[in-house]
Amino acid sequence: MKRWINQIIKKRFNQKRIIKMRKGVMRPGHIQIRVLDMDVALSHYCDLLGLIEVDRDEEGRVYLKCWTEVDKFSVVLRETDEAGMDFTGYKVIDESTLEALENELNQKGYPTTEIPVGELNGCGRRVRFKAPTGHSFELFATKEQPGKWGISPRNPEAWPRGLKGMRPTRFDHCLLYGDDLEGNLSLFIDILGFDLAEQVVDPEGNKAAIFLTCSSKAHDVAFIKHDEKDKFHHASFWLENWQDVLRAADLISMTDTPIDIGPTRHGLTHGQTIYFFDPSGNRNEVFCGGDYHYPDHPTVTWDADELGKAIFYHDRELNERFLTVLT
Amino acid sequence: MKRWINQIIKKRFNQKRIIKMRKGVMRPGHIQIRVLDMDVALSHYCDLLGLIEVDRDEEGRVYLKCWTEVDKFSVVLRETDEAGMDFTGYKVIDESTLEALENELNQKGYPTTEIPVGELNGCGRRVRFKAPTGHSFELFATKEQPGKWGISPRNPEAWPRGLKGMRPTRFDHCLLYGDDLEGNLSLFIDILGFDLAEQVVDPEGNKAAIFLTCSSKAHDVAFIKHDEKDKFHHASFWLENWQDVLRAADLISMTDTPIDIGPTRHGLTHGQTIYFFDPSGNRNEVFCGGDYHYPDHPTVTWDADELGKAIFYHDRELNERFLTVLT
Amino acid sequence: MKRWINQIIKKRFNQKRIIKMRKGVMRPGHIQIRVLDMDVALSHYCDLLGLIEVDRDEEGRVYLKCWTEVDKFSVVLRETDEAGMDFTGYKVIDESTLEALENELNQKGYPTTEIPVGELNGCGRRVRFKAPTGHSFELFATKEQPGKWGISPRNPEAWPRGLKGMRPTRFDHCLLYGDDLEGNLSLFIDILGFDLAEQVVDPEGNKAAIFLTCSSKAHDVAFIKHDEKDKFHHASFWLENWQDVLRAADLISMTDTPIDIGPTRHGLTHGQTIYFFDPSGNRNEVFCGGDYHYPDHPTVTWDADELGKAIFYHDRELNERFLTVLT
Amino acid sequence: MKRWINQIIKKRFNQKRIIKMRKGVMRPGHIQIRVLDMDVALSHYCDLLGLIEVDRDEEGRVYLKCWTEVDKFSVVLRETDEAGMDFTGYKVIDESTLEALENELNQKGYPTTEIPVGELNGCGRRVRFKAPTGHSFELFATKEQPGKWGISPRNPEAWPRGLKGMRPTRFDHCLLYGDDLEGNLSLFIDILGFDLAEQVVDPEGNKAAIFLTCSSKAHDVAFIKHDEKDKFHHASFWLENWQDVLRAADLISMTDTPIDIGPTRHGLTHGQTIYFFDPSGNRNEVFCGGDYHYPDHPTVTWDADELGKAIFYHDRELNERFLTVLT
Repeated sequence: MKRWINQIIKKRFNQKRIIKMRKGVMRPGHIQIRVLDMDVALSHYCDLLGLIEVDRDEEGRVYLKCWTEVDKFSVVLRETDEAGMDFTGYKVIDESTLEALENELNQKGYPTTEIPVGELNGCGRRVRFKAPTGHSFELFATKEQPGKWGISPRNPEAWPRGLKGMRPTRFDHCLLYGDDLEGNLSLFIDILGFDLAEQVVDPEGNKAAIFLTCSSKAHDVAFIKHDEKDKFHHASFWLENWQDVLRAADLISMTDTPIDIGPTRHGLTHGQTIYFFDPSGNRNEVFCGGDYHYPDHPTVTWDADELGKAIFYHDRELNERFLTVLT
Repeated sequence: MKRWINQIIKKRFNQKRIIKMRKGVMRPGHIQIRVLDMDVALSHYCDLLGLIEVDRDEEGRVYLKCWTEVDKFSVVLRETDEAGMDFTGYKVIDESTLEALENELNQKGYPTTEIPVGELNGCGRRVRFKAPTGHSFELFATKEQPGKWGISPRNPEAWPRGLKGMRPTRFDHCLLYGDDLEGNLSLFIDILGFDLAEQVVDPEGNKAAIFLTCSSKAHDVAFIKHDEKDKFHHASFWLENWQDVLRAADLISMTDTPIDIGPTRHGLTHGQTIYFFDPSGNRNEVFCGGDYHYPDHPTVTWDADELGKAIFYHDRELNERFLTVLT
Repeated sequence: MKRWINQIIKKRFNQKRIIKMRKGVMRPGHIQIRVLDMDVALSHYCDLLGLIEVDRDEEGRVYLKCWTEVDKFSVVLRETDEAGMDFTGYKVIDESTLEALENELNQKGYPTTEIPVGELNGCGRRVRFKAPTGHSFELFATKEQPGKWGISPRNPEAWPRGLKGMRPTRFDHCLLYGDDLEGNLSLFIDILGFDLAEQVVDPEGNKAAIFLTCSSKAHDVAFIKHDEKDKFHHASFWLENWQDVLRAADLISMTDTPIDIGPTRHGLTHGQTIYFFDPSGNRNEVFCGGDYHYPDHPTVTWDADELGKAIFYHDRELNERFLTVLT
Repeated sequence: MKRWINQIIKKRFNQKRIIKMRKGVMRPGHIQIRVLDMDVALSHYCDLLGLIEVDRDEEGRVYLKCWTEVDKFSVVLRETDEAGMDFTGYKVIDESTLEALENELNQKGYPTTEIPVGELNGCGRRVRFKAPTGHSFELFATKEQPGKWGISPRNPEAWPRGLKGMRPTRFDHCLLYGDDLEGNLSLFIDILGFDLAEQVVDPEGNKAAIFLTCSSKAHDVAFIKHDEKDKFHHASFWLENWQDVLRAADLISMTDTPIDIGPTRHGLTHGQTIYFFDPSGNRNEVFCGGDYHYPDHPTVTWDADELGKAIFYHDRELNERFLTVLT
């Protein structure tokens, strides 16, 4: 065999990067966010952000979705006295995959809890576990699938009329702050079949940030190193283009919504973005564009001393708020 | 178990749609296009379309790539006296996946030919086979991976300076015309693990067009029903946004390049697009945007009597040229 | 004086182009369009095109405006049994300018009719006259000025929430077909103080199209040579950007509105555009971008044998419909 | 006459706003900027900002222009040991207008200096005077007019190939800081025929900022109240769209150019913008979009306590740097 082929293969093993097939985790399926006042929250999430209310349950939780999502819901709001994220759930390809992953989690030291069918309206059984950073994750295989909002599955129009606010197309990912990034890396790569698409490393080789994907998106979940466990940085929603990021920025201003930063671009993933806060203090992102990732792509690495540019590509410096305001 | 869950599962089986894990085919990896005059072709593909020349071989073939592609090349031009596509190749996740698919192809009636390592510069062994529509496809697992063009893998900038022409980011897919769409459907879904993302069906239920994906892209290959076998409709390249589609249209006009249609939007996939011809008469597309697909998404169906809108969403009628000019 | 200065001055006079100060005509102020069915027309002009209804009068006419316009209205719809344009009016700087222009028109062979204050709700007296091409034009100096729609004049937001349809920002110009272009040229340049921004000329030097401006816009009115007098080609409205042209195209398709052509770019003025028809058969344009013109700018000239590219820059050929369907 | 017409007229006089015809000042024609090192400056202004070098003179000054400008140059760089603006010049409609304005300036207390033909290469005689804020302004009527760069005046393409950097289309305006805003207001409105398009006023009615126009642009010059005389805040260049603002932001980052703020939108004028610094510390702006102004439009007013939002519409707070870093 030609030498360059041997070199390619050798290089891969030296990197300890073995390309693997995915293990059946498809995408971020939902996130449950705690809000302090439901009416105020709904005004934010529906009128401004533009999510669509699809259901409420007996506990008072409200179910929301974005218009391109075929499943019933992607965001659940729960009213309580402390903001933050309760959990986020990933949809796997079928019930047998769910079982297999459940078994593997239990075997490898991640005890799971079963949340029964219907505990969330229209959602099948969920398998919940804690990541090493303290965050609660779920896997599920079944959810009611009413299809895209306002669009026929037959001869579908380009987009539905009647969208509100920022008109996000989907719940894209969440970014979480926590301590044990190496632990999460092992969980997400070895058990759940994610890839490490991007990372920030310090001079000692410690990871300051990891961006993980189970698709060709630049990130399906991301973690940033932080002393405390189980902190929520933001939930992120996808916009169609940079013009819509401007429109989002304008709406943020018109509604006197607290802005964090943007419109700008990230260095990491190169997405075009804006950050703002919901009335409970939870951070939201809407963004568009950015890089794609396949399993054979090398991990993109940013050096910690370029962290400013990695996070905010244009300003090339961090604002204190982005690093410290968490829920 | 709750009734709606049973209904979801029942509905799936009634549709004869069983969600399966992908089988390790990652993405369109290359296409070899026949051109009548290499110098003239290069002026088109490099200066106008904006591909980057990366190599030439002893046979006189020229290797091109788009800037975001980490592999060595994605387009190979071969000078000969008849335009068209020689073959298109898909990258699989590793050599053992390649072997497994090779075996399965042979067992299921698709005899394969092995193309040795290095027959294309920098490419590992390829497994070639004919689809029922007569088109030549290849699978391969290994290709030199110099990384994105003009971009460091460490602290990467947003895009490289010095791009030319339309600045496409990647070879996205090809659209092929042929007779036996049902045969191709079986090949691509059952053996290669693709999904049927979109289709056009006539009143009798015959498929007039099938759009297949092995990722979350709306199509990684597409076929349109046609009496002849092995016809090439177009190779398609990804642009970043609708503004770049306008820029491409302007460049087409400035260079007196024959246009087919655009800027416009497709109904199928809802991509935003423009079509034009290379100097040999091969059709090219550059496009952006459009829908995404996950394995659990229902197939999007267009009725054949809406074919005009399915193909050209704004004009809602086909131009004769689009249907009949093939290479 | 240096030689190049003499050359500049000489060149100007050779061109018979004397740069003159404007004569107080500011902008297109309104257009009265005939429609066959008012309810159907309002659905088109308000829900699809996105004009805002501001008033109705005893004759049943309906008054519309775009959101950035400070004056009360810019479009008047009149129901009758034949489509077309009744007249279009230009706002001049004040009542004394109106009087001066009225006198000059009468002296130079353009007899005027006075339309009294209030004949159009909220509009001062209008001076009406026929152009050599048979079209009815008006000048006026006073119109109620309620300000931009939905926007405070103090600390104004970027745009109002609640806009519908294509969200045009202003009535921009109309394009008219008629026979005596030289006559109109003399009227608009010598009396009304417009500039000839762009033109199409045939090999004999006859003008096939003239684009005239009283501002720095590429055209405030345009005429195309045609055998009949007094034909209406289209009324045009301004969009903010190319993304909005796509959005307009999508809306045209979603509402099954007859399209003429687009999205595309013009060669003349280089605007980015789409054309469609109202339910009475009147053509509408929405567009963005394009060139600007100052009084010292040379006239841009297109040769008649490049007319296809002049009109449709990307296709480089005319569609028959664009040339022949008039109201 | 109807009552509302009387009210309109009365209201105008109460506002002490008398709509007047322009006095023949057309546009910002040039700005002379002082730079500390010419080679470094040219790398910034040509390679990054994308101006085109068109000439140099015996004094070592370098002449630049943007591609849509028909006149020979719009920016002159002069190497010296202190950054800042030497002067900015406005083009008037012809030499007799220049003479008339020269006479009026002298009569009304603005002594003028004549700069002879050719002192700037290709420029006719200039009439220079000091504004009450201490800034040097010029009027001129004649400049060589080679036409748009890279574009034929006959059958012109949409844009020239070969543009570099941010590809600005024109020098748009400058913003200056100084003490006597009321003096400048009188000079620009009463003598030069500008309109006050926008203003910031404090609770006592004092003007904190004035945006003046001699066209339908939102500003052809702007002044902000400041204790010192003759300070230069920025020179601004026009981009085609918001996508180009992102591209400019990316280029700023890639070239490690100091950024001030952006991409963002202004409240004043609603333009979409980014600010950065040349290597000498002079601030540059590139922007697109925003409002338009006609002579009969009321002045848009921002309250000083909304200054943050007036300047940076999204952040709604000023950065110290924007207010204090001047040259």
